[in-house]
Amino acid sequence: MPTHEQLITELGHRGRRAARALAESTAARRNEALREAAGWIRRREAEILAANQADLTAAETQGLDEAMIDRLRLDPDRIDSIADGLEAIAELPDPLERVLADWTRPNGLRIQRVSVPLGVIGVIYESRPNVTADAAGLCIKAGNAVILRGGSEAVNSNRALHEALSDGLVRAGLDGNSAQLLPTQERAAVGALLRAHASLDMVVPRGGKSLVQRVQNEARVPVLAHLDGNNHLYVHASADPAMSRDVVVNAKLRRPGICGALETLLIDRAWLDHAPALLDALIERGCELRGDGAIQALNAAVRPASEQDWDTEYLAPILSIRVVEDGAAALDHIRRHGSGHTDGLLAEDREAAAGFLKRLDSAIAVHNTSTQFADGGEFGFGAEIGIATGRLHARGPVGVEQLTTFQYRVLGAGQTRP
Amino acid sequence: MPTHEQLITELGHRGRRAARALAESTAARRNEALREAAGWIRRREAEILAANQADLTAAETQGLDEAMIDRLRLDPDRIDSIADGLEAIAELPDPLERVLADWTRPNGLRIQRVSVPLGVIGVIYESRPNVTADAAGLCIKAGNAVILRGGSEAVNSNRALHEALSDGLVRAGLDGNSAQLLPTQERAAVGALLRAHASLDMVVPRGGKSLVQRVQNEARVPVLAHLDGNNHLYVHASADPAMSRDVVVNAKLRRPGICGALETLLIDRAWLDHAPALLDALIERGCELRGDGAIQALNAAVRPASEQDWDTEYLAPILSIRVVEDGAAALDHIRRHGSGHTDGLLAEDREAAAGFLKRLDSAIAVHNTSTQFADGGEFGFGAEIGIATGRLHARGPVGVEQLTTFQYRVLGAGQTRP
Repeated sequence: MPTHEQLITELGHRGRRAARALAESTAARRNEALREAAGWIRRREAEILAANQADLTAAETQGLDEAMIDRLRLDPDRIDSIADGLEAIAELPDPLERVLADWTRPNGLRIQRVSVPLGVIGVIYESRPNVTADAAGLCIKAGNAVILRGGSEAVNSNRALHEALSDGLVRAGLDGNSAQLLPTQERAAVGALLRAHASLDMVVPRGGKSLVQRVQNEARVPVLAHLDGNNHLYVHASADPAMSRDVVVNAKLRRPGICGALETLLIDRAWLDHAPALLDALIERGCELRGDGAIQALNAAVRPASEQDWDTEYLAPILSIRVVEDGAAALDHIRRHGSGHTDGLLAEDREAAAGFLKRLDSAIAVHNTSTQFADGGEFGFGAEIGIATGRLHARGPVGVEQLTTFQYRVLGAGQTRP
Repeated sequence: MPTHEQLITELGHRGRRAARALAESTAARRNEALREAAGWIRRREAEILAANQADLTAAETQGLDEAMIDRLRLDPDRIDSIADGLEAIAELPDPLERVLADWTRPNGLRIQRVSVPLGVIGVIYESRPNVTADAAGLCIKAGNAVILRGGSEAVNSNRALHEALSDGLVRAGLDGNSAQLLPTQERAAVGALLRAHASLDMVVPRGGKSLVQRVQNEARVPVLAHLDGNNHLYVHASADPAMSRDVVVNAKLRRPGICGALETLLIDRAWLDHAPALLDALIERGCELRGDGAIQALNAAVRPASEQDWDTEYLAPILSIRVVEDGAAALDHIRRHGSGHTDGLLAEDREAAAGFLKRLDSAIAVHNTSTQFADGGEFGFGAEIGIATGRLHARGPVGVEQLTTFQYRVLGAGQTRP
């Protein structure tokens, strides 16, 4: 039996070779491979569903909760949409060999900054089996090899999806190791993967906070991570009341469980006259409100907010609301309690809005629109592997462009450095 | 006595506050601060030289080697050029609030990607005291606070430079904690700094390989690191003999000790007729040559190259030379032995050159020019904090632009997500 380190080293070698071949492949071949993979996933529907049924049976035996079982469950529609997803990635523009900058120095040297693949990317995820195909598709589109490690509750589903996908990739002439699935569910193997400098260029954890934190703590390779989305909107004195109501309702309630959902509303004292109608609109739609004294005074249904509420990402139809004296106080609250994901304001005063956005230290700063637009698809990126809340390399939605790096090309005619 | 962790937390809090003030400062004020800092460094020349003398005396007592003492030494010219450096940084264009991308979605949402400061940057460096001012200047120009930790052999020089610099920053109205110097030389304090997620957004080690590796191993914050520059040039069959001679001589011998220096030359067998003149040119200029059998056969002065030579960054007037059958063999050698810093080729055949550059997995790929151009100044970046050899965030020269990150600004007119 090889050790975990030996296993990861071997996977890493194969990944490197595949990454090299991918970097030299044409966009047409990579796109063809994604379409072939989609085709094989459709063709293997029965096998994938049977594998998924085995996971579901095990999950029920183990007493997993309903939400988790729903995330795990595949059906013909879901398999179809996994295949659709790969075909949609194939349609995206090629993110490689884009000239990002191009200039000529006084000595005649021409310097170009050109997008190139990142290399080998690890993706560690939890129960949704669709990530197996989505993550592989995005990585391969950007010329990267990927090493996948899904949740143990989805082991059979992931294996079946991975086999179908790999058959498609090979059929289109790509290296069969372009997308590798970690062949063991042992946690120690994940630890070895996270330490594998030489094998991995980046790791992307996709899942709940405990997974992300574990990856961040253990990783010795760079991590592109998504932590909290404790998102804020500030309602400026100049905010349009009807627009504010629609945007806040959408930001909180459209899908309260996504990372772009609004969690805390900060209302300028000068706008307080308009607040009762907004509170009513939220309560009518089933939102629980937790407010400071001034907000509680407006509506008997508002429960008191504790200090802890300001730090909580509810991911549920609950909204904490606080009255602030001005934009500076709103920024101060966001700095103390925010997570740097998506924050913004509602304001008709464009100058005040520009100043506020500039002072917000968030990956995504929104003005007069819903925080729920914090999404790669909504940004026009086509598909995303997640939202990055760190500050380096990529911030916000991570699509195929963010899965590339760049190379400088220095083109001369014999120049030497004096 | 506070623990190292408490000390770092306190420095981190101060750094955060300073970073916030810097992010909200105008470019004019930051530039004024850099000029004031330069002025105070010039005015305090006598004190800085006295402090440097104390370091030099201690270094001699401890028997430090001549090269190290030279790196440590300041004189009026060197102090002048430190101040010049800060003034030159002040003249660079503002790297902040640049609109890097700007597009409008079908729903009318306008999305901008705008450059913003990274936050708080740690810089850990060795004996050259000028880094105290250079690193602080680059970080502040880009709106970042910096926490500096210089080598213990330069402790007095660094403190004197830092005091003068800080006085200048405060005089221009910046927060006095914009550039903090770690107040202890204990290694454990550096360890605490490297683990300080909450206090530091990035750490930049500047120094020898052992420093960089220690930082990479210990850091829990992202590292922008420079490892080896084991750089290659491939002489293609179509290479111009005179240009190749001039470029190779320059790449190896202009300054053999810099990270962009050429270390291994790969000669296409079809070009071997031109090789003797090239070998003569190198030997004449005092370069030691280590070659494979075919190269040894051309000149009796060529010593045999061992396997280890191909992996060695000499940083000295020594060049290893190997004959390869074609471009693919050259790429194969570079992949096995290169460090991904700066590699390239000499070729008149432009199509062959473009294919070769594209297949090179190096931060900087050069064609018909010297590897010694791998430098922020030569790229037109004005000044650099180092050359990054990692793949994420920044690759190649790290100037003020690379010390920024970005924010998405999403500008709406009340759009909600369906």
